[in-house]
Amino acid sequence: MNAKQEFEVVGSRPVRPDGLDKVTGRARYGADLNMQDQIYGHILRSPHAHARIKQIDCSQALAMSGVLAVMTGDDLPEPGSRVLGSGEGAIALRDLTPMVMSQGKVLFHSQPVAAVAATTPELAAEAAAAIVVTYDVLPAVTDFHAALAEGAPVLHEDRFPDRQPKEPTNLAALITAQVGEPDSAFEQADVIVERTYSVPMCHQGYIEPHACVARVDGAGRVDLWCCTQGHFTVRAYTAAVTGLDEGNIRVTPSEIGGGFGGKTTVYLEPIAVVLSGKAGRPVKLVMDRGDVFRATGPAPGAETRVKLGATRDGRLVAADVDCLMDSGAYNGNPAGIPAFLATACYKLSDARSVGRSVYTNKPKIHAYRAPSMPQVTLAFELVVNELAAELGMDPIEFRLINAVAEGDTNMMGARYRRIGLRECLEAARDSDHYKSALVAGAGRGVAMGYWINAGLQSSATLNVSADGHVAVLTGSPDIGGSRASMGLMAGEVLGIPLEHIHPQVVATDAIGHCDVTGGSRTTLATGQAVIEAANELVAELCRRAAAEWQVDAEAVVWSGGAAHHEQQTLTFEALAKRAGSMGGPLTVSSSLTATSAAPAFAVHICDAEVDGETGRTTITRYTAIQDAGKAIHPDYVEGQMQGGAAQGIGWALNEAYVYSDEGVLENPGFLDYRIPVASDLPNIATQIIEVANPLHPFGVRGVGEVPIVPPMPAVAQAVFDSMGVRVSHLPLNPPALVAARNEQDS
Amino acid sequence: MNAKQEFEVVGSRPVRPDGLDKVTGRARYGADLNMQDQIYGHILRSPHAHARIKQIDCSQALAMSGVLAVMTGDDLPEPGSRVLGSGEGAIALRDLTPMVMSQGKVLFHSQPVAAVAATTPELAAEAAAAIVVTYDVLPAVTDFHAALAEGAPVLHEDRFPDRQPKEPTNLAALITAQVGEPDSAFEQADVIVERTYSVPMCHQGYIEPHACVARVDGAGRVDLWCCTQGHFTVRAYTAAVTGLDEGNIRVTPSEIGGGFGGKTTVYLEPIAVVLSGKAGRPVKLVMDRGDVFRATGPAPGAETRVKLGATRDGRLVAADVDCLMDSGAYNGNPAGIPAFLATACYKLSDARSVGRSVYTNKPKIHAYRAPSMPQVTLAFELVVNELAAELGMDPIEFRLINAVAEGDTNMMGARYRRIGLRECLEAARDSDHYKSALVAGAGRGVAMGYWINAGLQSSATLNVSADGHVAVLTGSPDIGGSRASMGLMAGEVLGIPLEHIHPQVVATDAIGHCDVTGGSRTTLATGQAVIEAANELVAELCRRAAAEWQVDAEAVVWSGGAAHHEQQTLTFEALAKRAGSMGGPLTVSSSLTATSAAPAFAVHICDAEVDGETGRTTITRYTAIQDAGKAIHPDYVEGQMQGGAAQGIGWALNEAYVYSDEGVLENPGFLDYRIPVASDLPNIATQIIEVANPLHPFGVRGVGEVPIVPPMPAVAQAVFDSMGVRVSHLPLNPPALVAARNEQDS
Repeated sequence: MNAKQEFEVVGSRPVRPDGLDKVTGRARYGADLNMQDQIYGHILRSPHAHARIKQIDCSQALAMSGVLAVMTGDDLPEPGSRVLGSGEGAIALRDLTPMVMSQGKVLFHSQPVAAVAATTPELAAEAAAAIVVTYDVLPAVTDFHAALAEGAPVLHEDRFPDRQPKEPTNLAALITAQVGEPDSAFEQADVIVERTYSVPMCHQGYIEPHACVARVDGAGRVDLWCCTQGHFTVRAYTAAVTGLDEGNIRVTPSEIGGGFGGKTTVYLEPIAVVLSGKAGRPVKLVMDRGDVFRATGPAPGAETRVKLGATRDGRLVAADVDCLMDSGAYNGNPAGIPAFLATACYKLSDARSVGRSVYTNKPKIHAYRAPSMPQVTLAFELVVNELAAELGMDPIEFRLINAVAEGDTNMMGARYRRIGLRECLEAARDSDHYKSALVAGAGRGVAMGYWINAGLQSSATLNVSADGHVAVLTGSPDIGGSRASMGLMAGEVLGIPLEHIHPQVVATDAIGHCDVTGGSRTTLATGQAVIEAANELVAELCRRAAAEWQVDAEAVVWSGGAAHHEQQTLTFEALAKRAGSMGGPLTVSSSLTATSAAPAFAVHICDAEVDGETGRTTITRYTAIQDAGKAIHPDYVEGQMQGGAAQGIGWALNEAYVYSDEGVLENPGFLDYRIPVASDLPNIATQIIEVANPLHPFGVRGVGEVPIVPPMPAVAQAVFDSMGVRVSHLPLNPPALVAARNEQDS
Repeated sequence: MNAKQEFEVVGSRPVRPDGLDKVTGRARYGADLNMQDQIYGHILRSPHAHARIKQIDCSQALAMSGVLAVMTGDDLPEPGSRVLGSGEGAIALRDLTPMVMSQGKVLFHSQPVAAVAATTPELAAEAAAAIVVTYDVLPAVTDFHAALAEGAPVLHEDRFPDRQPKEPTNLAALITAQVGEPDSAFEQADVIVERTYSVPMCHQGYIEPHACVARVDGAGRVDLWCCTQGHFTVRAYTAAVTGLDEGNIRVTPSEIGGGFGGKTTVYLEPIAVVLSGKAGRPVKLVMDRGDVFRATGPAPGAETRVKLGATRDGRLVAADVDCLMDSGAYNGNPAGIPAFLATACYKLSDARSVGRSVYTNKPKIHAYRAPSMPQVTLAFELVVNELAAELGMDPIEFRLINAVAEGDTNMMGARYRRIGLRECLEAARDSDHYKSALVAGAGRGVAMGYWINAGLQSSATLNVSADGHVAVLTGSPDIGGSRASMGLMAGEVLGIPLEHIHPQVVATDAIGHCDVTGGSRTTLATGQAVIEAANELVAELCRRAAAEWQVDAEAVVWSGGAAHHEQQTLTFEALAKRAGSMGGPLTVSSSLTATSAAPAFAVHICDAEVDGETGRTTITRYTAIQDAGKAIHPDYVEGQMQGGAAQGIGWALNEAYVYSDEGVLENPGFLDYRIPVASDLPNIATQIIEVANPLHPFGVRGVGEVPIVPPMPAVAQAVFDSMGVRVSHLPLNPPALVAARNEQDS
């Protein structure tokens, strides 16, 4: 496939279709829908981080007037051994079901234990408090080193890691990838640097808490409204957890106030469904902020050791990576990415990478924007910078020598097609930012990052109305402006005014399967489905025009929103109006499994200044450069780049889960869990590079994930550079930096 | 095309998918949806049947606290000359717009004059009452003879009937059809009978009043929920009346509590949209029963003169028909059907038929089940019976001699393909009912009827979920059990359990265009779209299985819900589960314009006994025989046959609009407008004949319309037979029959 090169509307910046409703407060988010006759659910959560449940007595709650249903884990089927989904997103039902509602044991503080539905939210809370749960409290372990130590409390007594089959341990997974002979390759290195860096568990920090409302009808069919990144996933997971058929569940996605990977699973939905089925009324469930922090899936904390060797002329010859990741109470599969993709930016024929994940008494981790990649890249890029420094080389020049290019393979065995890493590095090198001198006291960091960009399954349907308007339906929730990009792509093919194109995200029953909006796959894969459907529509319109003119369809040309043959023209509008008499309604569906990844790379430059006294870091200048393949709507590409950088900066400088010894989260709110606010950040300059993805008709790569990968090492390097000291544990918050400076001074 | 002959599930009688919700009260009808923050509309209606509007003063209403919007006809664009739709369903915007909201003149009592939206229904009503309208009252005319008389008040001073261009008159349309030379053909007749029968305006009598709720969002997009037989029509009409783009309007149909043709237009919807756009809040509008009777579209009253001539051996040689129909205040196109289809059951090479429609100061008429056909058939079949009697022939034998068959043409010039009229007549002749002797005092009537059965545009989409369930989407509101029939047809093709098939009626944006559920076209045309989509899905599944097995797709056979090749089998379930890795999500859309009619015929036999003293008629036995082509779900075919018969019996015996001299409807409620209740009717025996429609893959013809065509003449004949007296004006209610008997006695 050769990607299209010349565009009419793609690359322009029209107002987004969902914009006006969002800024005027009319857009409906998860908690904004109330179904008629709805009642309210409340979840009773565990006060212990690790305990056996001896008994749950719901009799008092059930006896309260206005309480219509109560449920516990006994109302969910035994999960069995089934695995849902695939790859990074896969989850075993034995992990999903108890995460939704504990069955026999609680493994983290605030894990759901029971739930109530009542006529008011207050009554539901009161009734939940009247449920008497008898626990056998067990010792909790929240640190992953402690969890691996001998004698640690074991969370899953029936689970045995692959390689140690004799005793149950908290090792959830151990994944090793290797190419060549890294041990002997290190012998060829002139310089070797080995460092360990760690980063704490942190939350995606989406502003909108989880919310849903479910109605089960008389025939057992479910109508479910929720905020999610993937309503098809909600359907599949809710069906699996509750034991219902997927075909009996319709999920309609609300608008979404952020997800970043954290809204690709279910927490409330199966509970609402079970309660509604029991109560015979719609049931609404809304989390508060504390529930979101305490009991949804944060990003794993991680400790990564990276050892790199290079020759004096700046050639990387060997890598050895070991990444230990916190999985929380259930298996969140964080270990594969570090094992297979730690080295993905670099030509390395000899490398070993090990990923391990560990159970701890904390909520099960979940995807957060380029999942696991920032944690391992933090260490890798800092070691690369140190290696370049030891070699006396400019860090960008060092990377240019070692950057992967077309034809290279990564540790997954995937061979890169045309990629834009070199172009990003050159743009960084040539940027005004990089060429500008630092102010005194400031430091500068450079780092780069990679993301695979998932393809997966997508579907699109185009329905044409008689007035020549087109509904562009997909099943991909719009997080980052995808309605705008779908409209632009359809408009590019059809050649009709963008105001006549109505991109919509529709319920699970109204469109073919679509995987989650995540993995930076939506504009890529769903966009491809839209382009294919639009091409099919154009082909059909040309066939109809050809039949009218009694010529071969091949002789008809589509351009400017009309079919042409010699002097004859039939506009889209005319063909739409006459559809009934020219072959019937115009409706086209397209679906695909985008099998190929669309690798994206980013290079970030950060200038930072640390206040020597207070330890406060000020980001003084920041530039994000990224290969988008093709930026369909550049505003939203830039927005993704800026958003990813902002989140990475927050993670580098401030964000962290703080647990008590008893496994209770001590900062479950935005006052104590500090994400960057506008005044914390400089303008984040962006530069979009466009090296077309040869596997996509418009050259698109995903853009949402990769901008969170470089910030942690870029910021850390700038901080180290400013302070002249290296700190191995993030976040680099004022107390940590003051302590480091004091240690240095002493 | 050869229709399929052997069926696995088609013809069985499973529980309908929408049944449980309907019997448990959970199904949501037009008035059952409340949108968040909705307010309530109230329509101010004209107290005059004919008046010029001099002024509308809304200032007092607008000043009331809680009143958020007021509208009048000035808020709608000038209608211009555009015509919406086609054929029988066509309506000029100049007729539609003022019917929704008068512009300058009112032409019938209760015509909307203004509307208000306020925070409560009571306040809206109060505010509407505070609007001051100054009228110039004009004389009203409600009788169509009077309307055609010289000096009658003229409703539309700017309209001139085709053939009388000099003066405006109330003649709305005059349509003449002729074959051969009827005048000279009558000379060959041995017996001629000529009679005139008339029937009053009556209402469809659907139980659910019209209701809708509309929300206009910040960008001017409309979300509209309403009870309708065709939400695509609602979209198109609402767009045309309000001046919005169709593409900006989404219409979701509610469940529907009856329509019978009366819910194929808009009354409330454009008003709700305009009010919501002005108020910035969703607006709900619900009619009360009186509004439904007074201001929605009833069936036209008609007077039909039929003259038939036959030879002594029972051969019809000539026909002359003249049908005068009441159009109400605007043009409802009732005259075409009588002109072209009055003679449709009979071989007649020499015939003339004239249809005229007349404006009167009554609500514009609208479709009612086989529109215009019962009125003209009443006279035609009674004359046929009288002719047979004069010839001393059995009325069924007479009809068997003259019944149309394959190869004959009707007055539209359409040549019949294989039809089942002869089979219906033979079944009637051979029925236990017809062979049983009458009890003393009772009479018997036989009549037959024809309906064309529309094709028009339909679309269907099949979406397969990973657990092997299939959502079958159409845009055809389910009135008579079409979800059940769509499920059966999809199940027949796919071979999977019916419980895995989920037929759904989805909103205008989620499916290709579908014309109204009406004209008996849904199981026929939308069913064909479902069958075609299912066939496409099977073809795709066979291609996937073939790819897996590395054989030609043609070598793969689909049966029993699985693909087979030699010893290899891949079930639907397995193919659904593995869709992602075998080519992507399974989604198929199909659309078509069903160009061909599927003529259906029915023969009814009625026994009735008239109480000589009170004039009360008891229907003692009733049999309905009908060619369904193929009965997909026989329960609902029988239900349609019984329902049509019941409505026809009601029209024959009791139903009638009664107007005062001032043009005010005097019986606008079910107490005074009496439709048959269960105790008024005997069991209506049914016999389904299946002569496959050769133009449909499963042989389907429409079934909903034709059963209302024979009842009026069958009942009237039985009554005349019982009384020994003939009455020329229906309904045959007790006062009419007592008067007729008295006249006979005198």
